[in-house]
Amino acid sequence: METELLGYAAGILTTFAFLPQAFRMIRTRQARDVSMTWAASTTAGVFLWLCYGVAKQSLPMISANSLTLLLLFVILFVKIRDRGNPGS
Amino acid sequence: METELLGYAAGILTTFAFLPQAFRMIRTRQARDVSMTWAASTTAGVFLWLCYGVAKQSLPMISANSLTLLLLFVILFVKIRDRGNPGS
Repeated sequence: METELLGYAAGILTTFAFLPQAFRMIRTRQARDVSMTWAASTTAGVFLWLCYGVAKQSLPMISANSLTLLLLFVILFVKIRDRGNPGS
Repeated sequence: METELLGYAAGILTTFAFLPQAFRMIRTRQARDVSMTWAASTTAGVFLWLCYGVAKQSLPMISANSLTLLLLFVILFVKIRDRGNPGS
């Protein structure tokens, strides 16, 4: 039980650290700050961490990685749409 | 065993995605790209994920988070040193 609390605290810290960047990209609808390589490999990696969390039946890993994955999908969407617009 | 491979693949993807930014900051010795809030909360969060991995005896989590933590310490060091230099 204490171990799970540790995991939730970890998930809250790493997910919340990621929120300002995600929100800025969503608000400005620009994704120049991050590279496509970063966005694609992080999305793939977080998806695999989510699968690992499901396999390990770890609720902290499942919840933190699900939320991060959701934000990454929005960033990827902004990033892909941004590609055709060199002026942005 | 297959579950651990999934974890290693996840760790390789998320850690490698982080490498270019870490190396750029180490090379340029500038850390303007990231905020102190991000650096501090990510470092605390990754440290807790490492503790969680130790408690869960998960080798993929221990190895991935150790490497990321090491890079974050370098970034934090650059960031703290950079604070006193407004021109950089």
